[in-house]
Amino acid sequence: MSDSTRGTPANIAPATGKLAIFTPGLGAVATTFIAGVERVRRGLSVPIGSLTQMATIRLGKRTDNRSPMIKEFVPLAALNDIVFGAWDPIPDDAYTAATKAGVLTKDDLEPVADFLKGIKPMPAVFESRYVTRITGATNVKTGATKRDLAEQLRADMRNFMAANGATRGAMVWTGSTETYIKPGPQHQTIEAFEKAMDENDDSIAPSMLYAYAAIMEGVAYCNGAPNLSADFPALIDLANKKGVVISGKDFKTGQTWMKTVIAPGMKARMLGLEGWYSTNILGNRDGEVLDDPASFKTKEESKLSVLHTILQPDKYPELYKDFSHVVRINYYPPRGDNKEGWDNIDIKGWLGYPMQIKVNFLCRDSILAAPLVLDLALFSDFAQRAGMKGIQEWLSFYYKAPTVAAGLQPEHDLFIQQTKLKNTLRHLMGEEQITHLGLEYYQ
Amino acid sequence: MSDSTRGTPANIAPATGKLAIFTPGLGAVATTFIAGVERVRRGLSVPIGSLTQMATIRLGKRTDNRSPMIKEFVPLAALNDIVFGAWDPIPDDAYTAATKAGVLTKDDLEPVADFLKGIKPMPAVFESRYVTRITGATNVKTGATKRDLAEQLRADMRNFMAANGATRGAMVWTGSTETYIKPGPQHQTIEAFEKAMDENDDSIAPSMLYAYAAIMEGVAYCNGAPNLSADFPALIDLANKKGVVISGKDFKTGQTWMKTVIAPGMKARMLGLEGWYSTNILGNRDGEVLDDPASFKTKEESKLSVLHTILQPDKYPELYKDFSHVVRINYYPPRGDNKEGWDNIDIKGWLGYPMQIKVNFLCRDSILAAPLVLDLALFSDFAQRAGMKGIQEWLSFYYKAPTVAAGLQPEHDLFIQQTKLKNTLRHLMGEEQITHLGLEYYQ
Amino acid sequence: MSDSTRGTPANIAPATGKLAIFTPGLGAVATTFIAGVERVRRGLSVPIGSLTQMATIRLGKRTDNRSPMIKEFVPLAALNDIVFGAWDPIPDDAYTAATKAGVLTKDDLEPVADFLKGIKPMPAVFESRYVTRITGATNVKTGATKRDLAEQLRADMRNFMAANGATRGAMVWTGSTETYIKPGPQHQTIEAFEKAMDENDDSIAPSMLYAYAAIMEGVAYCNGAPNLSADFPALIDLANKKGVVISGKDFKTGQTWMKTVIAPGMKARMLGLEGWYSTNILGNRDGEVLDDPASFKTKEESKLSVLHTILQPDKYPELYKDFSHVVRINYYPPRGDNKEGWDNIDIKGWLGYPMQIKVNFLCRDSILAAPLVLDLALFSDFAQRAGMKGIQEWLSFYYKAPTVAAGLQPEHDLFIQQTKLKNTLRHLMGEEQITHLGLEYYQ
Amino acid sequence: MSDSTRGTPANIAPATGKLAIFTPGLGAVATTFIAGVERVRRGLSVPIGSLTQMATIRLGKRTDNRSPMIKEFVPLAALNDIVFGAWDPIPDDAYTAATKAGVLTKDDLEPVADFLKGIKPMPAVFESRYVTRITGATNVKTGATKRDLAEQLRADMRNFMAANGATRGAMVWTGSTETYIKPGPQHQTIEAFEKAMDENDDSIAPSMLYAYAAIMEGVAYCNGAPNLSADFPALIDLANKKGVVISGKDFKTGQTWMKTVIAPGMKARMLGLEGWYSTNILGNRDGEVLDDPASFKTKEESKLSVLHTILQPDKYPELYKDFSHVVRINYYPPRGDNKEGWDNIDIKGWLGYPMQIKVNFLCRDSILAAPLVLDLALFSDFAQRAGMKGIQEWLSFYYKAPTVAAGLQPEHDLFIQQTKLKNTLRHLMGEEQITHLGLEYYQ
Repeated sequence: MSDSTRGTPANIAPATGKLAIFTPGLGAVATTFIAGVERVRRGLSVPIGSLTQMATIRLGKRTDNRSPMIKEFVPLAALNDIVFGAWDPIPDDAYTAATKAGVLTKDDLEPVADFLKGIKPMPAVFESRYVTRITGATNVKTGATKRDLAEQLRADMRNFMAANGATRGAMVWTGSTETYIKPGPQHQTIEAFEKAMDENDDSIAPSMLYAYAAIMEGVAYCNGAPNLSADFPALIDLANKKGVVISGKDFKTGQTWMKTVIAPGMKARMLGLEGWYSTNILGNRDGEVLDDPASFKTKEESKLSVLHTILQPDKYPELYKDFSHVVRINYYPPRGDNKEGWDNIDIKGWLGYPMQIKVNFLCRDSILAAPLVLDLALFSDFAQRAGMKGIQEWLSFYYKAPTVAAGLQPEHDLFIQQTKLKNTLRHLMGEEQITHLGLEYYQ
Repeated sequence: MSDSTRGTPANIAPATGKLAIFTPGLGAVATTFIAGVERVRRGLSVPIGSLTQMATIRLGKRTDNRSPMIKEFVPLAALNDIVFGAWDPIPDDAYTAATKAGVLTKDDLEPVADFLKGIKPMPAVFESRYVTRITGATNVKTGATKRDLAEQLRADMRNFMAANGATRGAMVWTGSTETYIKPGPQHQTIEAFEKAMDENDDSIAPSMLYAYAAIMEGVAYCNGAPNLSADFPALIDLANKKGVVISGKDFKTGQTWMKTVIAPGMKARMLGLEGWYSTNILGNRDGEVLDDPASFKTKEESKLSVLHTILQPDKYPELYKDFSHVVRINYYPPRGDNKEGWDNIDIKGWLGYPMQIKVNFLCRDSILAAPLVLDLALFSDFAQRAGMKGIQEWLSFYYKAPTVAAGLQPEHDLFIQQTKLKNTLRHLMGEEQITHLGLEYYQ
Repeated sequence: MSDSTRGTPANIAPATGKLAIFTPGLGAVATTFIAGVERVRRGLSVPIGSLTQMATIRLGKRTDNRSPMIKEFVPLAALNDIVFGAWDPIPDDAYTAATKAGVLTKDDLEPVADFLKGIKPMPAVFESRYVTRITGATNVKTGATKRDLAEQLRADMRNFMAANGATRGAMVWTGSTETYIKPGPQHQTIEAFEKAMDENDDSIAPSMLYAYAAIMEGVAYCNGAPNLSADFPALIDLANKKGVVISGKDFKTGQTWMKTVIAPGMKARMLGLEGWYSTNILGNRDGEVLDDPASFKTKEESKLSVLHTILQPDKYPELYKDFSHVVRINYYPPRGDNKEGWDNIDIKGWLGYPMQIKVNFLCRDSILAAPLVLDLALFSDFAQRAGMKGIQEWLSFYYKAPTVAAGLQPEHDLFIQQTKLKNTLRHLMGEEQITHLGLEYYQ
Repeated sequence: MSDSTRGTPANIAPATGKLAIFTPGLGAVATTFIAGVERVRRGLSVPIGSLTQMATIRLGKRTDNRSPMIKEFVPLAALNDIVFGAWDPIPDDAYTAATKAGVLTKDDLEPVADFLKGIKPMPAVFESRYVTRITGATNVKTGATKRDLAEQLRADMRNFMAANGATRGAMVWTGSTETYIKPGPQHQTIEAFEKAMDENDDSIAPSMLYAYAAIMEGVAYCNGAPNLSADFPALIDLANKKGVVISGKDFKTGQTWMKTVIAPGMKARMLGLEGWYSTNILGNRDGEVLDDPASFKTKEESKLSVLHTILQPDKYPELYKDFSHVVRINYYPPRGDNKEGWDNIDIKGWLGYPMQIKVNFLCRDSILAAPLVLDLALFSDFAQRAGMKGIQEWLSFYYKAPTVAAGLQPEHDLFIQQTKLKNTLRHLMGEEQITHLGLEYYQ
């Protein structure tokens, strides 16, 4: 605990014992996350990109010079207390999966090879109808009903936690994008949802079973894909009832992250938008999956909503009404895991004069996503210990399509999301809100 | 006054009578600003890019749905109450100058040609040693001392305001970048400054005379160039003593605006920076002036400071220590007034893996600057009526190198600047600060 | 005739009388072409982009200094001898069509408005099943059979030429891209083709009727779209029999032009290719038409073939086997007629090390195409007068998918195409071939 | 010898015995070249980028299908017959130097580490006044006069060749760019040049001593830097007298290579040019050296000349007169050896309408240069055996600033250079020139 903070409020339970982080999916993102945490624990790497590990938080006035590390201010689980559990339909251990993913170099994997080889995926709940382009899915659970499969997942978690001495768990979906599903009557109440599981209803996708199992086990659930998963009344109600925190959907990395940086900058200056064309090339498994139009539709919905919510065309018709927004994703094998985006942005300024911004982002998908897995798990675990439950809007910062309370617009502006995140931490820890007013220096 | 606001606090003087907006410099920026305001007044154009004319401000809770236009919330001068005064060493009237600048099309200038032809520049204080690349400077004041020249500027303002029925004034520097000057003993006290004017000291540049004259006349001063101008103790003290608001320096448009959008986005996610290379091509008078190394140095200082202040290398050595930052400006005539920037940004993520962002901004210098002139004049006039004086840190939003109180770091993050600006308006109008906490929706 | 040439060979008929240039399609390309020629004739503009008007051709040794203008070396029709005939399903005259196309500014159109208003499209052969996204097609021929429609087109040409005193004609297809058609038995012989016209066979698209009509009338035919049109044995044989020159397909402008510049440069240096990703955004009628997958398929075939033919993967498997080639076209209205391409090229060098080239081309579709219409018409007319007939491979220079003799690969390398074009002109005019050997300067 | 060729003409001496390739400079380029050749010899890599190793050459008609590998058509030295000699002021062996250069990965260097460690640089002729930014120059020859130093270099070559059983030698300058030197009277005759060496005249730079020594020893000389080196009458005459081939200057890689690809493409289509802005960022020793304005001037001269010679503004004033051409090079350490260029090209088309091309080239300097070293050495050795001497204009293909006969313009167009190279090979081997006329297929 840093001197610069005032001590943890009494109502927040301490981070005693191990924290199990469960990842459905042991592919590029999950293995990059796990290998990275282990490298950091061994002092070999720096956890760049993670707020829980790297960021500070300003407390009080600017001239107070109180800016502790978040991890010293907030009682988060320590990296050394994390244990990793995973499911995957492909039976490769974490070392093999990481090698195939090709994200981390051999030089970076070798020193933690022993550790990674010890992480073997539990058999997954998987159906190729929901993710059409994956082959080699041999490590798969069987069960008479979807309810039965969910119960197997619950047992997996109980067993894993017992075996590893974990006192708490957080699940972060790092699996593939499923085909598009609209919420139906099966998703409105927990009773309807459980009945649908019993009846093997098509509208119940595997990611929903994971979410259901987590919530039932008191394990926080974070959804890194655009899948519906936990984002419907039945599971939201269940989370509230069980005192479990949930958040989602779809890690905000790469192009959408950049979009939620630039669009607020444009709007801050009241510059108009004529059109925004975004294309992506990527060559990994994700790219193959999204080559299926049904999976792409799920992703596209997630990616398209961002601009309208930030720009508020209803409020600013002269600036943002009827802009063109095109998002394309193309499978392009030479790129490998190194996703690349090209954006063309047509803006208009004073008297309507046009200008253009082009952004070419040579990024790395899993490198951007891995620290988000860590932060979401640690913050969710903390929130649950602080007595929070249900939707965690303050974690919108990490998501392309934030889940929010019914009746609210999701907030997509990265900087409002950041303010919300930091002010929530301040609030939970009993510190004052920061407003950046600062007139006191001039009086 | 909108129903959604609670009325103007009693301590704010109403915007009665005309507001004189004075621009030293009647070139591309000033004529684009003036022609634009006149087009908007005649209903021919939309003042895109201006917060005072286009933006709303959220008041209260999200679900209150109170988001009036800023201009309905805050008692700003109306566009119809603005009168324009200008100085320029080149004697062209505003129509001729606008035509030569080539920013606005003939189609846009013709309908307001009559108005623009009526705006003739007063003789300027000008010395080619401070701005080396300007030719044709025939409309220039003469005087025995710099003090004498400053007094002539004061008389110009008094005469103009009397002739035009103006009750208040605001001056926005829209002239060229002067050669680099470091503050010396001549700039520490108003006595030393006045003595230096009397002695025609080289360290007193023309833009300082304009600033001095404005402050002495009770006219708000805003500095759109990186010139030292009013950013030293002598004139800051004078402004405080005279109850005049000042702000500066250097309009934040184009590449630096984009930089202060992207750098905060990168830092929000704790992504590291290896290097940022920025090059600019521009073909207007500004480009010619900056081809002189002495003027470029002034500009470079202004442009280079931005990243270090946002990224805080001292606080985040693992992320931001020793990054390369190169800024280049090249005179390239084919571009005309359409400045173009190309940025290459080398970032690093999880475990230090490198990524790259390239931004190509095809922008229009004067189109981006013109609405800033308007906003700064209107907000400065409002602040002065609200009893503010001296440095207006909340106007940092508009500047590349914000002037702040001694002992404070300038804030460069566009989004913190925006929060500061909006929360200042809320504060002055007696509304609550917005913190984006928003936990009430989940309880 | 320039002094630097040796006179026109006797077997070439002089360009006596008027030349009728017929354009099926009076849209953006055709009106830009016509308005431009008229502006050039009136001395208002320069015909940039046209080899027939602007280029020189080197004759003899470098030190001979013989480089006449092509138009002085080769007996081409003069611009003043051109008369314009057009068909279009939309009844707008050339002035209205040009205004709607939005390619040329009002300032450029007004001085030739009188001329353009006089050009009214003849009723077109049009069926929306072949071009699905065009609306307002009211200026359309009717006829019992396709043969009958073709005969109407022949009569149109005869009447137009008689009315305008034209001695020769050249038709350049400037209409839309039709849906994809594979050559079938109907396209193998002229008898089968005529029978299919009589029977209104679906495999006979409108552009084939235009090509047939032109050839029957002795009018050269040039195909600016990827439509099959004249590129099958029946019409090739007919052209040879009638002594008519034909060429095609698909104007090489924009991205494909650039591709056939860069790919030869890469191959010249034996650099390998891992992948080439090309995306296009365009907002004109062409963009709308290509939004129909059936039309896009025709275009895609045309665009994809380019790289394989230039790079010869069979000959260079270590360099060019199995590269990814993705081409996308997206309708994006803010771009208007200003097509924009973004290419990402993944190359590999010494020992296989990867490098990347990104090309962003902000181009103007019709501006690039218009001079090609002129050159093709003038060169085709010349070739026919020089006794050439059938396929003109030397005009490959202008096409994305050059039509060549059966059994030959089309040549896509822009520089080989250019050499072929210029050496063909030299050959026809009795000059020596240029080989760039040039050892004589060192002996 | 391939069946597809007709046998080597009798006047060409066979490639018997070893060929010594001498590189003044054992830095990034030379070590990448040497390590690569050794990897290729061991079957570990493919010599991508090398025409002598990878390219084919078409002989006869297209339908003859005679396209042998160049190395099977022309009697070149075999890779296995190459021995490597180098000088460098820094005493690192080739393995250490390659490791420091950071071009090739550890994985690629290790398998040939034994070989590279055996290559130790001979003491260099070096003076820091000609290359100002190099530190650690301890492996340097001393001598009373420059003539004496040149004699030491000659002895080095004789000794190396004797020790390694080499029958022929070729020297390729792979050292740094020297400060700018204009040819003076000292460079006009061999007598004046030798006198200047005796007198330690400042106008005699180290690279000239290497060139002189090579020519005196009958060793072909190729100049990979923009240094004057051998490009003046004294050494050209000497080369002709001694029957030695020479060529230069400045490897055409990266941005200039791309420029000589795109400019001919633009000119082929008679598109005009308003301006070309080129900026480069690079982080290796070359970047440091070019940060010195005196070295940059040498480079800039070399880079700027390219466009004017290709575009011929005198012949095409309406298209190419008075375009802006700006070239910038910036030292930017994060880029390492991976040079990156950004070009903005402003072109104009039909009627003068503007368009833009932006090219971002993420290249690798030494990867592009290494195969050029190999080709130049092998082709020069071949040419000398074929009885050629003096300037080899047909090797212009490899150079930014080709050396040509007095009175000729250098040819910069990559495709004309390629034609010249291939037709020269055909000529020397007794094959017909290729003209691409090809009318025979249509008769």
